[in-house]
Amino acid sequence: MDQKVILTGIKPTGNPHLGNWVGAIRPTVELSRDPAKHGFYFIADYHALTGLKDAAELRDYTYQVAASWIALGLDPESVVFYRQSDVPEVFELSWILACFSPKGLMNRAHAYKAVVQKNQEAGEEDLDAGVNMGLYTYPILMAADILIMQSHWVPVGRDQQQHVEIARDLAQYFNRQYRAEVFTLPEALIDEKGAVIPGLDGRKMSKSYGNTIPIFTPPDQLRKLVFRIATDSSRPGEPKDPESSTIFQLYRLLAKPEDTEAFADEYRKGIAWKDAKEALYALLETTLSGPWARYQDLIAHPEELDRIFAQGAEKARDVASRTMREVRRAVGISH
Amino acid sequence: MDQKVILTGIKPTGNPHLGNWVGAIRPTVELSRDPAKHGFYFIADYHALTGLKDAAELRDYTYQVAASWIALGLDPESVVFYRQSDVPEVFELSWILACFSPKGLMNRAHAYKAVVQKNQEAGEEDLDAGVNMGLYTYPILMAADILIMQSHWVPVGRDQQQHVEIARDLAQYFNRQYRAEVFTLPEALIDEKGAVIPGLDGRKMSKSYGNTIPIFTPPDQLRKLVFRIATDSSRPGEPKDPESSTIFQLYRLLAKPEDTEAFADEYRKGIAWKDAKEALYALLETTLSGPWARYQDLIAHPEELDRIFAQGAEKARDVASRTMREVRRAVGISH
Repeated sequence: MDQKVILTGIKPTGNPHLGNWVGAIRPTVELSRDPAKHGFYFIADYHALTGLKDAAELRDYTYQVAASWIALGLDPESVVFYRQSDVPEVFELSWILACFSPKGLMNRAHAYKAVVQKNQEAGEEDLDAGVNMGLYTYPILMAADILIMQSHWVPVGRDQQQHVEIARDLAQYFNRQYRAEVFTLPEALIDEKGAVIPGLDGRKMSKSYGNTIPIFTPPDQLRKLVFRIATDSSRPGEPKDPESSTIFQLYRLLAKPEDTEAFADEYRKGIAWKDAKEALYALLETTLSGPWARYQDLIAHPEELDRIFAQGAEKARDVASRTMREVRRAVGISH
Repeated sequence: MDQKVILTGIKPTGNPHLGNWVGAIRPTVELSRDPAKHGFYFIADYHALTGLKDAAELRDYTYQVAASWIALGLDPESVVFYRQSDVPEVFELSWILACFSPKGLMNRAHAYKAVVQKNQEAGEEDLDAGVNMGLYTYPILMAADILIMQSHWVPVGRDQQQHVEIARDLAQYFNRQYRAEVFTLPEALIDEKGAVIPGLDGRKMSKSYGNTIPIFTPPDQLRKLVFRIATDSSRPGEPKDPESSTIFQLYRLLAKPEDTEAFADEYRKGIAWKDAKEALYALLETTLSGPWARYQDLIAHPEELDRIFAQGAEKARDVASRTMREVRRAVGISH
């Protein structure tokens, strides 16, 4: 049992795009192949509810994120792969942790502070305008996600590091109060690379900018999207700077180093934008055609995803209910 | 099914005293005998955790409150009698409702505002000092308690009316968002009498003043407590004003009207304080000896209380899980 527990979740707030793949899905798939780690991978469907109040979208995105993760290499047999909503113990723990969270801790959380600042800048009188209690208490639910599985490591971007520290603080408050090592103290595993993935218009790829390339999109649409990538007005034959080109940056994220080097050479030799786009499209097509078939198959058979969820739920609840037995005993809720 | 659902909970934060009986337990026992109402009566053990961080106390108080309620007339066979912690669905619903609660709604809740005001008056720089997130979000959990059972009526004191209104607001936001009548809209049932019950020193009987008379206390201790009730210095034979006497006020809460009238006459005739105390003690002893035996029996047999809890849990979860099936379907968490 020297295996370290590693836990990561994805919020199903949209159809996954290339930025999600490179930034979140691909690194976690790599981590999932490390036999020294016991992986917990979950779809944070109830987290999505802070912003997403449309039933059909929440349902669809949940299946799409799950199918993407699996199609892109996550093996649900070798990790615990589950939906947050299948582990209701998380919400019970969330209440308990709330009783150990000073309100000041939430006031200092980034996501909340960002909204308050926006309200301030907009001259809004009520600084809490647009803040619902799900958004405000989100770090507590995230702490429950982490602590209930006795996680050692939580891979996150820099922006989420604070939330893992909050989880660690709450675990310490609890352990100290009841003089028992009920919770493992989690640590953030920061992805230092954290490359910003550019979208069609050159800005960060993000659903809110409408500049994304969905990972699983029919080939003809994928080609159209690639041809919409913004370029400068330099003409065929003119040497081009690969580093300032969105096409090149996306290519590099997917290609082998030697192919990337050769592509950079083409830039310096003055490749036409049209040809650069064809090259990126061909690379995307080759890279994604295998996963695309698997994705289509999963989306066409939600009952297979349901079976996978059910199997994951059982494994996840086994761990969660063991933790909760200890937690309840510690606080004096003895059943 | 024209029966109205009535729901009430008691927070196990101490060994029940006379004030709890007259103010909370006795009225709910009376309501529980109304065949037109389908009663849900619960021990709000997880609510107590906002302030009570001692496992043995939480466990003991939970049993004591349950045993008191039953000993004083609540029939667990004719109502749904359960522990909050036996219905984990409540916490899942609490998260969902949080996603529908504007933060401003919590900022305006009385219990929170009272602490902020205290901090202000104490010159405390951090107005949230001493506020944990359990206390702050308490009205949301209370709304979940109420809505999950599809309650029509919630008997509360004036100070809790706002919380029932918050529950009603959240039910409306939810129903409107998903265009479905998922939740019954609850209403507060205000106890207009709401007499203040005096404690040993004449102030309101309250654990925090240390002036309580525990309902179930051995006869010799009960007698000692009654003899500690504060009186003025008027001597035997001097006429006394019943209305300003704690002894008389407590007597009246328990006695038949004609006995109360007779006791008032004794006051006017100049009863000695010693004799007044003996009369109150005798009344308490007569009133409580039956319940006392039943209480002792239940406390000595926690397995009997556990059996009662298990039976209540089953009935409560049956209703809760029906509500949650509809709620999950509405939001798009479909299992």
